[in-house]
Amino acid sequence: MKNFYLLLITVCLFACQQTPDNKAATAENENKEMKTVTEKAEYALVIHGGAGTIRKQDLSEEKEASIRAKLDEALTVGENVLKAGGTAIDAVEATIIVLENSPHFNAGKGAVFTNEGKNELDASFMDGKTQNSGAVAGITNVKNPIRAARAVLEKSEHVMLAREGAEQFAKEQGLEIVDPSYFHTDRRWNSLEKAKQREMGSILSENPIDNKFGTVGCAALDKAGNLAAGTSTGGMTNKRYARIGDSPVIGAGTYANNNTCAISSTGHGEYFIRYVVAYDISAMMEYGNKDFGTAADYVINDKLKKAGGTGGIIGLDKYGNVAMPFNTEGMYRGYVKPDKREVLIYKD
Amino acid sequence: MKNFYLLLITVCLFACQQTPDNKAATAENENKEMKTVTEKAEYALVIHGGAGTIRKQDLSEEKEASIRAKLDEALTVGENVLKAGGTAIDAVEATIIVLENSPHFNAGKGAVFTNEGKNELDASFMDGKTQNSGAVAGITNVKNPIRAARAVLEKSEHVMLAREGAEQFAKEQGLEIVDPSYFHTDRRWNSLEKAKQREMGSILSENPIDNKFGTVGCAALDKAGNLAAGTSTGGMTNKRYARIGDSPVIGAGTYANNNTCAISSTGHGEYFIRYVVAYDISAMMEYGNKDFGTAADYVINDKLKKAGGTGGIIGLDKYGNVAMPFNTEGMYRGYVKPDKREVLIYKD
Repeated sequence: MKNFYLLLITVCLFACQQTPDNKAATAENENKEMKTVTEKAEYALVIHGGAGTIRKQDLSEEKEASIRAKLDEALTVGENVLKAGGTAIDAVEATIIVLENSPHFNAGKGAVFTNEGKNELDASFMDGKTQNSGAVAGITNVKNPIRAARAVLEKSEHVMLAREGAEQFAKEQGLEIVDPSYFHTDRRWNSLEKAKQREMGSILSENPIDNKFGTVGCAALDKAGNLAAGTSTGGMTNKRYARIGDSPVIGAGTYANNNTCAISSTGHGEYFIRYVVAYDISAMMEYGNKDFGTAADYVINDKLKKAGGTGGIIGLDKYGNVAMPFNTEGMYRGYVKPDKREVLIYKD
Repeated sequence: MKNFYLLLITVCLFACQQTPDNKAATAENENKEMKTVTEKAEYALVIHGGAGTIRKQDLSEEKEASIRAKLDEALTVGENVLKAGGTAIDAVEATIIVLENSPHFNAGKGAVFTNEGKNELDASFMDGKTQNSGAVAGITNVKNPIRAARAVLEKSEHVMLAREGAEQFAKEQGLEIVDPSYFHTDRRWNSLEKAKQREMGSILSENPIDNKFGTVGCAALDKAGNLAAGTSTGGMTNKRYARIGDSPVIGAGTYANNNTCAISSTGHGEYFIRYVVAYDISAMMEYGNKDFGTAADYVINDKLKKAGGTGGIIGLDKYGNVAMPFNTEGMYRGYVKPDKREVLIYKD
C-alpha cells in the first residue's frame, strides 16, 4: 500500500511538471529551435509592379509576356548587385530604375496623368540598418524619382521634400533632369481622357488595367544582412489638388528595419496611410512576436480587407523569407534568391 | 500513515493548481479587474504648444504668464465643446484654432519662415472612430490650416494634399483665405534672419526659444467615447526644398483610434517620421498589450531618445488617461477633465 501511495505521489509530481505553462515553454523551445534552423538566404530581392484588377482576359499574350520579361529583367539587375556583394540600397535602386524606365508600370516613364494633364511622381526609400529615409512627392522633371528619394535619404537632413522644392534639391544633387514630356505615354493620356469622360457620365466603363494601380517597389536583403526598401509611383489617374498617396509616406508605402522586415506597398493609398500598413506589419512582428508572413497576411487580407482597402505589399525579413500578399485580383510581382526565382501576376 | 499519504497527495494536487500558468491567469484576472475599475473620464482633452529647449531663464514672467493664459484659454474652449456634448473632432478643431490664432506658437499666426521668407503651413487631423484622416502640407493662405485638414478628412476622397492643390481645395470648401502676410510676425522674421546669419557663421548662438519647435496639437475624448487628434505647424525656421515634417504625416505626427489612443506629436519631425512615433505607441498597446502611459513613455523616453530624436507627444486613451511625455527641457502642455485641469511648461 505504501508503494501505491508513493507511486501516486510521484505521478502527481510528474503531472505538476506538465502544466500548460511548461507545455507552452516546451512549444517555445521547439519554436526557437525552428527559428534557429530557419535557413538564412545569402541574399534575397522581391519586387512588385502594382496590384489591382489584373485579369488574364484583359492582358494580351504579348503584353503579358512583355511585362513578365520586364519583371524578370528587374530581378536580374537587382540580383547581380547582391551577388557581387553590393548593398541592399544599391540593389533596390537599380531594380526600381528598370521598372521606372519601362512604360508598363505607373512610375517614371509610364506614369499616369493628373487631372491637369501632368505627370507628378512620388517615391520613397528606407535603409533598414539606420532607419534613414528619403521621400519626394509631386516631382515632374527628375527622370528617376527613386534616385531623388535616395538622395534625400543620403544627402539631406530632411526625410520628405515636395514638388518644386524637391526638384530643386534633385537638380542640386546632379540627378538627371528631363523635360516633363519625357513621361508622356499615349496609353496613359487616353486613360486620363477616359477617366474625365467617365466623370462626365459619357462612358461607363473602361479597361481596368489602365486605371488601377501600377506603383513599383522593391525590398532587398544583402549579404551583409542589411535590409532596404523603395517605392515609386505616378499616383492615381486624374488625381487633383496635388494629392499625395502612400508611396512617399514612410510607414505607409515603404518601411525597412533590420530587426524586422523591409516592405513596399501598392494599392489604394489613402487606406495604406490610415492603416500605416508597412509599419503595422513590422510592429506586429516586434510587439506581437509574429513571423513576417503571418503579420503581412493578417494586415493585408484581414485588417485592410475588412476596412475596404485594396492592394498588397511585397517584402522580406532578415532571413530572406519573402511574402507577397494582396487582396486584389492580381499583383505584378516576383522574387529571387540564390536558389529560386519566380515571376507571378494572377492569384494562382 | 494512510492519512499522511492522502494528505501528501492532496498537497501535491493543490500545488499543481498553483503553477506559474495559473498564477498568470490569476494575475490576468486581477488585471482585468483593475481595468474594469479604471474610471472612465466623462470627457478629456489634452494639448501641446511645442517641445524643445524651453528654459525658465529664457522666458520673461510676462511672456510665461501670457503663454499659460493662452494654453488655459485653449483648454476652456475645447472643454466647453465636450461639456456641451460636442464631438471630439469639434473640440480638437476649436482648441487648435485658439492656438493657431495666437502668435505665441509656431502654427497659423506666428508660424516660422522658410529660407525663402515664406510661411508654409502643415496640419493633419484623424478621427478615431472611422480612421478617416486629412492632411495639408505647405499651404500659405488658409487662415486656419487645421480647418483645411478637417475638410480633407470630411470632404475629400484623399488623405493628403500639398501646396497649391491643397489651397485650391480649401478655397473650394469655402474656408477663410488670407493674404500670406497675415502670418508675418516680426519675431519669427528676426529668427529667420538670425538663422541665416548663423549659417554664414556671423553669429554663433541665438535665443533657443524662438528657433526650436512650436507645433501645436490636441487630442480629445468626447462623451460618446470617440477619440480624435489634430496637429498644426509652421515647420522649421529656415526650412528649404518644400520640406514636409511629421505634422501632416498620419502615423508620425497625428494618430487616433478608438480602440487604443489619440496622439499629437511635436519635435524633430524627421525622427518622428522614421520611427512612426504616434502609430508606434498605438501598436505597442494593440500588439504588446501595454497601457497608454507605458507605451508613450517607452517610445519617447527610450526608443526615440536612444535614436537621438528630440520632442514629445500628448495624448489620451479611451478611458481618458492622459500622457504627455517629452525628452526635451520643456513642452508647453495641459489637459482638462471634469475634475482636473493643469497647464505645464517645464520638466518639473
